[in-house]
Amino acid sequence: MAHSISIERTVHPKQKPAADQLGFGKYFTDHMFIMDYDAAKGWYDPRIVPYQPIVMDPAAKVFHYGQTVFEGLKAYRTADERILLFRPHRNFQRLNQSNDRLSIPPIDEDLALEALQQLVLADQDWIPSAEGTSLYIRPFVIATEAALGVNPSQQYQFIIILSPVGSYYKEGIKPVPIHVESHYVRAVAGGVGTAKTAGNYAAGLKAQEHASANGYSQVLWLDGVHRKYIEEVGSMNVFFRIGDTVVTPALNGSFLAGITRESVLQLLRHWNIPVEERTLSIDEIVEAHANGTLKEAFGTGTAAVISPIGELFWQGQALRIGEGQTGELSAKLYHTVTGIQKGTLEDPLEWMVDMTKQASVLK
Amino acid sequence: MAHSISIERTVHPKQKPAADQLGFGKYFTDHMFIMDYDAAKGWYDPRIVPYQPIVMDPAAKVFHYGQTVFEGLKAYRTADERILLFRPHRNFQRLNQSNDRLSIPPIDEDLALEALQQLVLADQDWIPSAEGTSLYIRPFVIATEAALGVNPSQQYQFIIILSPVGSYYKEGIKPVPIHVESHYVRAVAGGVGTAKTAGNYAAGLKAQEHASANGYSQVLWLDGVHRKYIEEVGSMNVFFRIGDTVVTPALNGSFLAGITRESVLQLLRHWNIPVEERTLSIDEIVEAHANGTLKEAFGTGTAAVISPIGELFWQGQALRIGEGQTGELSAKLYHTVTGIQKGTLEDPLEWMVDMTKQASVLK
Ligand SMILES: Cc1ncc(COP(=O)(O)O)c(C=O)c1O
Ligand SMILES: Cc1ncc(COP(=O)(O)O)c(C=O)c1O
Repeated sequence: MAHSISIERTVHPKQKPAADQLGFGKYFTDHMFIMDYDAAKGWYDPRIVPYQPIVMDPAAKVFHYGQTVFEGLKAYRTADERILLFRPHRNFQRLNQSNDRLSIPPIDEDLALEALQQLVLADQDWIPSAEGTSLYIRPFVIATEAALGVNPSQQYQFIIILSPVGSYYKEGIKPVPIHVESHYVRAVAGGVGTAKTAGNYAAGLKAQEHASANGYSQVLWLDGVHRKYIEEVGSMNVFFRIGDTVVTPALNGSFLAGITRESVLQLLRHWNIPVEERTLSIDEIVEAHANGTLKEAFGTGTAAVISPIGELFWQGQALRIGEGQTGELSAKLYHTVTGIQKGTLEDPLEWMVDMTKQASVLK
Repeated sequence: MAHSISIERTVHPKQKPAADQLGFGKYFTDHMFIMDYDAAKGWYDPRIVPYQPIVMDPAAKVFHYGQTVFEGLKAYRTADERILLFRPHRNFQRLNQSNDRLSIPPIDEDLALEALQQLVLADQDWIPSAEGTSLYIRPFVIATEAALGVNPSQQYQFIIILSPVGSYYKEGIKPVPIHVESHYVRAVAGGVGTAKTAGNYAAGLKAQEHASANGYSQVLWLDGVHRKYIEEVGSMNVFFRIGDTVVTPALNGSFLAGITRESVLQLLRHWNIPVEERTLSIDEIVEAHANGTLKEAFGTGTAAVISPIGELFWQGQALRIGEGQTGELSAKLYHTVTGIQKGTLEDPLEWMVDMTKQASVLK
C-alpha cells in the first residue's frame, strides 16, 4: 500500500494508568491520527502526531449542526503477544455509510485501515493484556468549516484516538435489568438512526438518565411510529431466545446495524441454531414471558460483546428472564466471541486481522 | 445586576467586511463571551475575550455524542443610532428548555442576557445599518468533558459569538419554491425535535441537499409517524392563509417553537385576524389549493423573518400559491415585524429591548 502517513513521535510519553483503573474511554494514548479535508483538495495530509487538543473556530459546524460520525472497535493483545483487530473493515464500511447519510465525503477505507494499524503499532505498549481488557479505537469525523449556514461543511477532520479499556465485567458476565422506554424515542425510519452519528446519542441521554435513576442499567428502545416494535438496547443490538429459536429485530432503517450483531448471527447459523431476523413487538415478548417460552435475552455490542438481560421493566411490570441468571446460549456466545477476539479459540469465520503479520507489510 | 463579567479587549481589531459582502454567518466580530461549567463548581468565570479558537480535547463529548444546544437572535441598529434586540428573554428561556432536554445544566437567564448585551456593546461598531442588515447573535453550549462514556458531560462551555449579516432579500421580499419531503424525517414526538440542538440540523442536511439539487430552496417536513401532518420548513415555522383564516401547526412536541412564529401569532390576534393552531395535513393543503381557498403560505424565522412560499412540490405535483407572488398578508407581516425591529414602527407588543437605555445600567 502506498499511502504515506507521516509520523511525529511524542517526546513526552505519558504515564500509563494501572490495569485496574482503566474503566471505559477515560485514558488516551500518546498518539492520534489526523487527516484533513477541503472541498477543493479532497482528503489530504494523513499524519500520526502526539495526542493533542484540537484547535477549532467557535463557528465550526460540528458545534452548531452536529455534522459528525464515529466508529468504535477494539484491538486485543493475545497471550502469545500478537495484536488482533476484530473485523476492522466492517467498521470503515459502516463509517462510509454514516458519512453518506450525513453528507460527509467518503474516506478511502484502505487508507483508514492502514492509518489505524500504524497508530495502534505506534502505541502498542498501551494495549493492556489482562483478561477482558483491550485497546478501544475511536475513529471520528467532524465538520470544521467556520460558517453558520445550515449546509454541509466544506472542511472536515478525520481523527482516530485510542483508549485502553478495562474489563466490562469485573466479576464475570452478569445479567442487567433493562427499562423498556415508553415516553422517549431515539430515532425513526427516515431519520438518522442507522448512522453512527452524535445526535442519536444526545437524543438518548435523558431516557438513560431516568432509567439509571430507577436502577436500570440501560434503555430498550421501541420504534417511534407504533411505539411497540423492539429496536435496540442503549448502545447494543438485542436478541431473544424464544423456545429454541433466536430472534432479533430485522434491520429496518431506524437502528444501527451492529457488527457484533452480524457476527453473532453468523455464529448461530454456523452452529445450526435457528435464527430469525424479523419485526418483534414488546407484546410478543410479554406473551413469551407469560407462557414460559422466553428463555434468554441479551444485548450485543463492541463494549460488552454479550450483555445478558436479567429483567425487563415494562409498564409497571418487571419481567424476570432466566431467573435473573446468565442463560446457556448467552454464556456460550460470550465465551466463544471473546475467545476468538483474544486468540484463545479458533476463528472459524475469519474475523480477526492479525496485525503482527501486517506489521512488516506496513514498514 | 451584580454579575461581574470580565472583559479583555482585543489588541488586533479585525478589518470589517464591506456591507455588500456580508452574507449569513461568514464573518465574526472582535470578541466573544465564554463561561465554563464544572459539575463541582457550577457555571463560573463569565468573560468577554478576543474572538479566538476553542482548544478542546479530541475526546470532548460534543464531538462524539452531540450534547450541545444553541440559539439565534438579532441586534438591529436604528436610523437614530439606537441598538435594539428582538425579544432576547424568549431565546434564553428556550435555551434552558433545550438544555433540559439534552441533560445540560440550566444557565442563569439574567446573566446570559447581560453577557449578550455587554458583548454586543463591546462590538457595537460591527452592527451594520443598511436596510435588511443586522448583527446575528449565536449563543451555544458544548459538552467539553474528555471521556467516551455515553452519559451527560461533567463540563461545558457556554459561548456567544456575533456575526454581522446581510439582507436576506437582496432584491426585496420574494417567494420561494419548497419541496415537501416524503422520504426523510427530521424528528418525531418523543425525540429532540423541540430542542434547538445540533443533531436535528445534521438530520436535515441530506433532504436539503436533494431539494436544492432540484431547484427548491427548502424542505417542508411532515411528521415522522403518519407522514402527512405539516411540521416546519427548513429553519422556519410555517403558516397558511386558507380563506380568511391563518392556520399554523399546533406545537406538538416534534418541532421548534419559533419566537417569530409566536410573534406573528400575537400580531395577527392584535389585528383581529382569525388564527388557528392545529394539526394540518398536506392533504388539506392540496385540497385547499384545488378548491381555490389556499391564498398564501409563508415561513417564519429569525433569519428571513417572513419568507413567502410561491410553490409547494408534493408527489410529482407543483402547487403554485398566489400566482407565485408575495401575498398581501405576508407582505404586511414582513413590513410590520421588520419595521418594529428596525425601530421605524411603533412596538405595540413591547418586543424590543433598547440596549441604548440598558447601556448605562450595565456600567
Ligand atoms: C446505537 C448502537 N447500537 C448498536 C451498537 C452495537 O454495534 P457494534 O456491535 O458494531 O458495536 C452500537 C455500538 O457500538 C450502538 O452505538
Ligand atoms: C428548526 C427551526 N424551526 C423554526 C425556527 C424558527 O425559530 P425562530 O423564529 O425563533 O427563529 C428555527 C430557527 O431559528 C429553526 O431552527
